Amino acid sequence: MMKKDRQFRPLPVPSVRLGGLFGERQDAICESTATILLDRCIQAGMLKQIDPDEPSPGVVIPPHSMSPTMPATEHKAMVSTQMFWDSDFGKSIETAAYSLYRQPNPVLEARIDAIIDLYEKLQRPDGYLNSWYLRIVPGREWTNLRDTHELYCAGHLIEAAVAYFQATGKRKLLDVMCRYVDHMLAVFGDGAGQRRGYCGHEEIELALVKLARVTGNQQYLDLAKFFIDERGTEPHYFDSEARNDGRDPKNFVFGTYEYNQAHLPVREQTKVVGHAVRAMYLYSGMADIATEYSDDSLTAALDTLWDDLTAKQMYVTGGIGPAAANEGFTDYYDLPNESAYAETCASVGLVFWASRMLGRGPNRRYADIMEQALYNGAMSGLSLDGKTFFYENPLESAGRHHRWTWHRCPCCPPNIARLLASVGSYMYAASADEIAVHLYGEGSAKTTIAGTIVTLAQETRYPWDGAIRFTVSLEGTARFAISLRIPEWAEGEAKLRLNGEVVEVTAVAADGYARIERDWRNGDRIDLDLPLALRPQYANPKVRQDAGRVALMRGPLVYCVEETDNGADLSAIIVPNELKERQEVALADLNGAVAVDLPVKREETSGFGGALYLARRAERTSATARLVPYHLWDNRAPGAMLVWLQAEK
Amino acid sequence: MMKKDRQFRPLPVPSVRLGGLFGERQDAICESTATILLDRCIQAGMLKQIDPDEPSPGVVIPPHSMSPTMPATEHKAMVSTQMFWDSDFGKSIETAAYSLYRQPNPVLEARIDAIIDLYEKLQRPDGYLNSWYLRIVPGREWTNLRDTHELYCAGHLIEAAVAYFQATGKRKLLDVMCRYVDHMLAVFGDGAGQRRGYCGHEEIELALVKLARVTGNQQYLDLAKFFIDERGTEPHYFDSEARNDGRDPKNFVFGTYEYNQAHLPVREQTKVVGHAVRAMYLYSGMADIATEYSDDSLTAALDTLWDDLTAKQMYVTGGIGPAAANEGFTDYYDLPNESAYAETCASVGLVFWASRMLGRGPNRRYADIMEQALYNGAMSGLSLDGKTFFYENPLESAGRHHRWTWHRCPCCPPNIARLLASVGSYMYAASADEIAVHLYGEGSAKTTIAGTIVTLAQETRYPWDGAIRFTVSLEGTARFAISLRIPEWAEGEAKLRLNGEVVEVTAVAADGYARIERDWRNGDRIDLDLPLALRPQYANPKVRQDAGRVALMRGPLVYCVEETDNGADLSAIIVPNELKERQEVALADLNGAVAVDLPVKREETSGFGGALYLARRAERTSATARLVPYHLWDNRAPGAMLVWLQAEK
Repeated sequence: MMKKDRQFRPLPVPSVRLGGLFGERQDAICESTATILLDRCIQAGMLKQIDPDEPSPGVVIPPHSMSPTMPATEHKAMVSTQMFWDSDFGKSIETAAYSLYRQPNPVLEARIDAIIDLYEKLQRPDGYLNSWYLRIVPGREWTNLRDTHELYCAGHLIEAAVAYFQATGKRKLLDVMCRYVDHMLAVFGDGAGQRRGYCGHEEIELALVKLARVTGNQQYLDLAKFFIDERGTEPHYFDSEARNDGRDPKNFVFGTYEYNQAHLPVREQTKVVGHAVRAMYLYSGMADIATEYSDDSLTAALDTLWDDLTAKQMYVTGGIGPAAANEGFTDYYDLPNESAYAETCASVGLVFWASRMLGRGPNRRYADIMEQALYNGAMSGLSLDGKTFFYENPLESAGRHHRWTWHRCPCCPPNIARLLASVGSYMYAASADEIAVHLYGEGSAKTTIAGTIVTLAQETRYPWDGAIRFTVSLEGTARFAISLRIPEWAEGEAKLRLNGEVVEVTAVAADGYARIERDWRNGDRIDLDLPLALRPQYANPKVRQDAGRVALMRGPLVYCVEETDNGADLSAIIVPNELKERQEVALADLNGAVAVDLPVKREETSGFGGALYLARRAERTSATARLVPYHLWDNRAPGAMLVWLQAEK
Repeated sequence: MMKKDRQFRPLPVPSVRLGGLFGERQDAICESTATILLDRCIQAGMLKQIDPDEPSPGVVIPPHSMSPTMPATEHKAMVSTQMFWDSDFGKSIETAAYSLYRQPNPVLEARIDAIIDLYEKLQRPDGYLNSWYLRIVPGREWTNLRDTHELYCAGHLIEAAVAYFQATGKRKLLDVMCRYVDHMLAVFGDGAGQRRGYCGHEEIELALVKLARVTGNQQYLDLAKFFIDERGTEPHYFDSEARNDGRDPKNFVFGTYEYNQAHLPVREQTKVVGHAVRAMYLYSGMADIATEYSDDSLTAALDTLWDDLTAKQMYVTGGIGPAAANEGFTDYYDLPNESAYAETCASVGLVFWASRMLGRGPNRRYADIMEQALYNGAMSGLSLDGKTFFYENPLESAGRHHRWTWHRCPCCPPNIARLLASVGSYMYAASADEIAVHLYGEGSAKTTIAGTIVTLAQETRYPWDGAIRFTVSLEGTARFAISLRIPEWAEGEAKLRLNGEVVEVTAVAADGYARIERDWRNGDRIDLDLPLALRPQYANPKVRQDAGRVALMRGPLVYCVEETDNGADLSAIIVPNELKERQEVALADLNGAVAVDLPVKREETSGFGGALYLARRAERTSATARLVPYHLWDNRAPGAMLVWLQAEK
């Protein structure tokens, strides 16, 4: 029962209203992104793929072979990004659904209803629903779970269905997807004639948990657990599936099942490997199942993987997966900055995973990383105006990396959009007798706790200012706990007052949260003050790419220098050991974001006599560098950018 | 006439006998590489491709499309690395030819004779000779000069023919190639029905100059000049050629004719662009033509390009072409170390170009770079035992980069081998009344100057030791000049004595050479002492990848640290500002190469508490780093390597 008490669930999206930075980003999503996503999906031709009354468009994006040496007889295994398209529609519908809470939009809603009608029409009588297989390569369903994202697509449509049902009360897509999952229940399992398979791109697992939670159907939860338990077991499903399809299992372009985390049973995995987004989605599903089944064997594996990722393989931005070749992980401490892949979706996935690790109770070990990945590696993926997108999030650019309007593989735009549109639900979680505040930001949250409706309001300019005032509203009094995260970077310096009286943080600390349990009354006030001094971050010397360099953070935000503020040759800037003499400036053209003007040294590029190499080093002059939040880079004049700056030695 | 006097020609390969470092490398080539190259060409199937009595092998290496969006109707333009195979045979024959001077090898010679017999048999009655077109895709010759290396293959077979004729006196291949060039003279030109084309991969130009010099046929020289003069002119040959072949000129995977230096007429080119090896071969041909025709318009263009390359686009190793995507150049000052492509062939090509820039007189502006590229970026391409090869030459490795035994595109192995096998000819050049010594090393050179046979011997352990003794041998006396290069790094510190008497270097300095003109007698002795102190090299601060770093050189050699000597985490090493306290050590397992043990600081990786990022920097301890010559790395236990080390600030 104690364990049951520590099951924390995120607050539903409509229970949190946001102002401040997150509110502005949500406004941009309501006003631009939600519509843009649909527009661009349709421009790409996605509607033609799902409309059963249209002729099949065939393969409109050139397929790529799954192996450069694949014989022609196996070309049926070729894949095209088109096979992901259901997922792009799914995430776009999910984004729109969340946006409708904040800003009703009948036109947008009607367009989504029309898309849902098409999906309903497309669905096969037995429930099967995948536009690639039904319309482009009919008759081949369930023949290549490894490569073709079949269950992944289902997962994203399920998430869309849940979000759209919650936002609008409309059940059509939810019912469609329940019928599809009912069909899956017949297809997958360890019974006679059933398939013991699972998807090459994880996603269905966490989606089924969402579907189970909204429908109360335990079978859906059990199917998610089945997919997780089967993964990586021997005899290997992907091998037998290939042979059954007349393909050689060795013709796998990524060489190893580490690519899709299917190299070992999940409880035996200790190293974060392969495709980064897939890994994050798997671990998210595992964390959900760990919470739902109180499965300590999964929790133990996840804790090992968490350390492996965050202590050996994560950029300071919370970006993960340095390599383009596998869109994922390479070796420990291999974190190249300029060529960093650090896909937006991967940081979004890390937020998903971190959030789910909080399901068993507040712990800043997870929430600090959630905040770091959210504010940096993930949020950089969306422009301030909500109209353009990063796929890769390098920590250094020579000036040619810019957000694009669309992508052949458009997974990132709706992913960062749906995260930001629903970010309130990552900020707060509740158990039976506790509200946890994981993230700070202007706004308010409403929940029922200990049988009482409680509203918790935050007044703050966070992350620009560290002062946060919480006001509790309820009728009468109620006993419960409020847990406020004290980020590790604020350790020893955070100040806490309750109704004006100082509370020693250490006296109420639990797992990095200040936990105040009492009989709360209407109007009770908590003031939390977090120090937002600029602070240096040095990388472990094993990170060869950051040797002799320093990154600068302020609160949860990684800062960078941009050419538009600092001119070219950003690597010539040398950060002093002492950061005290600095000025903070609110930048109007970045929505009032706080920039920092820092006295630095700068190597003279003009004084090198036109030489490429000399036996003496360049002269240095005093200068001021302007630092801006990393996630806001490339929102003004295009140019070079740098996070890891030369450090004075 | 003055200009004519300043036409310097490299000494023929057999005129120079080498000991010391180069002699050892040549021994390895004679004993291993020359035979290995033939073996591996034949193992790859090359013999089957040229033997007209065998059935055509067809395309045995999968072709690659010249554009990812190319329609199937244009697939005839697909290319395979097989179409280069004549060039690989050509360079292998050339290597073997040079090796025969040093070490007669009847078995090897007989094998080459047999290959030459096959080429003779394969040649078409009209003289045409290209095994790809004659055997694999007959009837398509001269339809795609842009992509299929047709004249490039001819060029390498011509170089082979010249070398083999000079080494053995056997004319068969030379005659075959003259017939082929006679055929080209009918095909190419600005007459009616002739093609105004040129090769997408330059090489034929410099080869025709060699052929003209050995045959005395001016038409061959004129054809080389024609190819150079036509290049990049409008209407563009590659456009019209594609249209004539039913291909869309826009379906060019590299997008721009900068890729093959055909974007502008060559005299208007000011920026070194595109594929690095192609660029070096073009400039080499241009320099030959500039010398042969005393063409100042070419010399002026070449001088601009020389500055562009060496002051903005060259690694400290003399490696060039940082990017794999185009095997070539990117932006100014973009010199990534770990991902450096820096193809062995490109540094070999830079040596070719530099050597030809010396055709108009000794000038260390070219010869210093020739030495730098030779000893570092080029020579690293061949293992000490002559059996394995680098294609890419990065300046940093995390431990996975190793020499291979063969490559799908085996251009580099015979290229570095033929350069080292003939390196004597790059060391010395002669005009009517002057011997220039561009490079130093144990051995002797013989030439006829001012009507007298002169032998110039070098006794030295260079590059391990800076003391070099020259002894002049001749009958009677003769008046001529000996010019000895004073490298820029030795400026002000080089010591010179003539028959024991001090000569002030500045008093005899000309373009960076000490030029001693006098009546030489038998037994005259010059002693040159070059300082070989370890010296720092700092990169221009515009090179972002080297910011805060220092490379260490000793004489012409770039040094590096290897994991086998220094353990892991080489980026944690910090080089002090003062390099005086150091020890030199001769390493037996690197053929007595001089290593340097240098006191350094080292960041503690163990003391970072397992964290990835901390607000404090790592502790430092004192340590000794062992530096070894870059070109010798990966000859002992495999592991990480680093050239640019952290510099104390």
